[in-house]
Amino acid sequence: MQHVDTLIYAGWIIPVVPENVVYEQHALAIQDGKIVGLLPNSEAVSRFSGRITHRLPSHVLIPGLINTHTHAAMSLLRGIADDLPLQQWLQTRIWPVEQACITPEFVADGTRLAVAEMLRSGVTCFNDMYFFPDVAGDVAAEVGIRATIGLIVLDFPTAWANQASEYLSKAKDVYKKFQHHPLIRTAMAPHAPYTVSDNALQEASELAEQFNIPLHIHVHETIEEVEAAEKEFGERPISRLHRLGLINSRLIAVHATQLQNDEIKLFAREGVKVAHCPESNLKLASGFCPVPKLSRVNIVTALGTDGAASNNDLDVLGEMRTAALLAKGLSRDASCVPAAEALRMATLNGAKALGIDHITGSLEIGKSADITALDLNHLESLPIYNILSQLVYAIGRDKVSDVWVAGRHLLKARVLTSIDIHELQAKTWLWRERIVKILQKQAKEAAQSSE
Amino acid sequence: MQHVDTLIYAGWIIPVVPENVVYEQHALAIQDGKIVGLLPNSEAVSRFSGRITHRLPSHVLIPGLINTHTHAAMSLLRGIADDLPLQQWLQTRIWPVEQACITPEFVADGTRLAVAEMLRSGVTCFNDMYFFPDVAGDVAAEVGIRATIGLIVLDFPTAWANQASEYLSKAKDVYKKFQHHPLIRTAMAPHAPYTVSDNALQEASELAEQFNIPLHIHVHETIEEVEAAEKEFGERPISRLHRLGLINSRLIAVHATQLQNDEIKLFAREGVKVAHCPESNLKLASGFCPVPKLSRVNIVTALGTDGAASNNDLDVLGEMRTAALLAKGLSRDASCVPAAEALRMATLNGAKALGIDHITGSLEIGKSADITALDLNHLESLPIYNILSQLVYAIGRDKVSDVWVAGRHLLKARVLTSIDIHELQAKTWLWRERIVKILQKQAKEAAQSSE
Repeated sequence: MQHVDTLIYAGWIIPVVPENVVYEQHALAIQDGKIVGLLPNSEAVSRFSGRITHRLPSHVLIPGLINTHTHAAMSLLRGIADDLPLQQWLQTRIWPVEQACITPEFVADGTRLAVAEMLRSGVTCFNDMYFFPDVAGDVAAEVGIRATIGLIVLDFPTAWANQASEYLSKAKDVYKKFQHHPLIRTAMAPHAPYTVSDNALQEASELAEQFNIPLHIHVHETIEEVEAAEKEFGERPISRLHRLGLINSRLIAVHATQLQNDEIKLFAREGVKVAHCPESNLKLASGFCPVPKLSRVNIVTALGTDGAASNNDLDVLGEMRTAALLAKGLSRDASCVPAAEALRMATLNGAKALGIDHITGSLEIGKSADITALDLNHLESLPIYNILSQLVYAIGRDKVSDVWVAGRHLLKARVLTSIDIHELQAKTWLWRERIVKILQKQAKEAAQSSE
Repeated sequence: MQHVDTLIYAGWIIPVVPENVVYEQHALAIQDGKIVGLLPNSEAVSRFSGRITHRLPSHVLIPGLINTHTHAAMSLLRGIADDLPLQQWLQTRIWPVEQACITPEFVADGTRLAVAEMLRSGVTCFNDMYFFPDVAGDVAAEVGIRATIGLIVLDFPTAWANQASEYLSKAKDVYKKFQHHPLIRTAMAPHAPYTVSDNALQEASELAEQFNIPLHIHVHETIEEVEAAEKEFGERPISRLHRLGLINSRLIAVHATQLQNDEIKLFAREGVKVAHCPESNLKLASGFCPVPKLSRVNIVTALGTDGAASNNDLDVLGEMRTAALLAKGLSRDASCVPAAEALRMATLNGAKALGIDHITGSLEIGKSADITALDLNHLESLPIYNILSQLVYAIGRDKVSDVWVAGRHLLKARVLTSIDIHELQAKTWLWRERIVKILQKQAKEAAQSSE
């Protein structure tokens, strides 16, 4: 009889690896934050005894969901501007507000709000891109969620840095800060080809190489972006990135709605990963990422929510559903992106994109105990013929009951154990007051200047 | 001081009529199942006293959602066959199972499961099409939800009837049964042009005229349907329906993913209503309903979930979000189907399609108290800048707290007041056992016959 920290008896377990497998009446044993057993309940009874034991007979355990692209702190801007196209949304709404309100405190409170929402949605790991990444990393570490924090690089001044060289220098500092952290990793995060110069892109790429970390960038989000680049540089952004040495297996290409066949071949050959954000792309009318084409050539495609200002939620379970439905609709093939593939995109493929699939992304012995439990004993999930179908097509994130990250029970019967939800709500309301005042002031100034 | 049955003080009220209006700190007064007051909380205190008073300070009240196309009883088949195209799904999976298990008891239990799910999703009215419509109507009446029950017509035998003449004769009986019911109405419901002959279509149309009720039909769901009709009849289904006299203001055209410009003009001229089912169309890869084109010529477009076997939920709030996102993505215009329009599609337009917009579909004095309350005091809905944005883009149906139909409180702090949820769950599990046995038997027979 082996003594373990935690033993979970579950109705069903979907491990993601091996593929297309659903274990019924199985248990997971956890020791020192890692999975040490996955076996039938009937055998677990005699093989393991848990310091803590959970019985979740109507629940399914899946690998914790991975949000492969977000701007966590933007949760404080949820719903500030909707029904607008990307460039108008960015330039007339988001950037002016950000300029007026971004501080370390904003990033701390906004990231905490996002992390709380993500944990309640079954997310155990997120890939972030925002200002004050050191603060975002601190919040994630403090709450106990796994994160890859983007070391943002831009060519224009923000509250975080004044020019590319300062962003790059701060990137090095933040990389070092988290270098040995068990949960927090970093990625170079030049914002986009249209906001970062050749030199800074190259330096970011060299740092990614030197630190052995991913490089996370928005690319080919809209046709307008591609056309503007062709006009300005005489080449498409991906071609420019290729020339600068960024097209390689470290690259997480976010959005990628505009991909020609030669670009898809290039991505496949170089091992580029794609972060597909279907709901953000739909909402901002940015275009469609060609998911079936990507999977045909084995490009790793993961899922991201994007920030809450453009989605407007951080719901990876919902993103899975949208990705599956949208791929079917666009390809005119209802068998495209079946449920198991959608789940793999939201788990293992996210881990692969972040270079941490040896640690997380599936429920396998030796991997970190990053686990999400969903309760299927609700009207909305009955009857149960096919667990994978229920998970992807029928239920919502409100059915997430429990979440563990590295064995730590962060969501317990829907209660967050490492976040004070009342304090968080109060702070969010305070931010709302401040931001509404900023909006009113900006509207007044705009009215005066147009007089 | 006027005494009323119920007085609800709310944080916000979105009445849908007038358009684009959000009332803050307003109250609704209900007497004899109807709305008799809608006024600021501060005035309501001195004008009304309620026999029952509710204070919902963090809630928004909206008109109850209307599900303009569903097959309620198919909830018992949720997830039975996914990731398959429409005709294969229908012919090899759905129809054989239906043939083996449809009885009045199946329809009663399946409809009750669907109604329970819909009430918990904020739906106060649904437009159904299924077998044993008398049973579905009885269940809806017993629970207290508003419904339009489709009087189904087909050209082949089912458990409900053997040939068109019997379907039509039973249609008359069911029409009469509910003729004077306060909540239950009926619609003629010939299944689709490809399953109903000219004669039966014409007779159904004449009955709709005679009874003064809508006519509800699947039409132009896929390009395959249109092409097969062109081959068989030498004309497109809409042209055939037009020739047979069905294209008029009673018609609820479900799906309508294949519409040529002349067909859109015809619909606009004749006042045809469209039931758009975006998630079903995506999931079955059926095509895309051209919503922006329809709204440009003022065709009333409402929203439906379709049945739970092809969606796999009955979540009209989610359908609103998908309709708004999909229209933006397909039109490449992020301002297309803004939040207010999506909400109108899910409420007032549904009522117009069903010919009951004088009764329901908006929160106006004199209309029925069909009301849905959603609690926004959750992490997922904060901060609040724009209530309409939160409603359509950020939150899920789990935020629905209360539902009233004709003033009756059917969902109370998420508890169903007229359905025994434990009994319903137990029955659903029993149906699952029976249906799994049917599936196993059919698989065995198929294996034997292919040997």
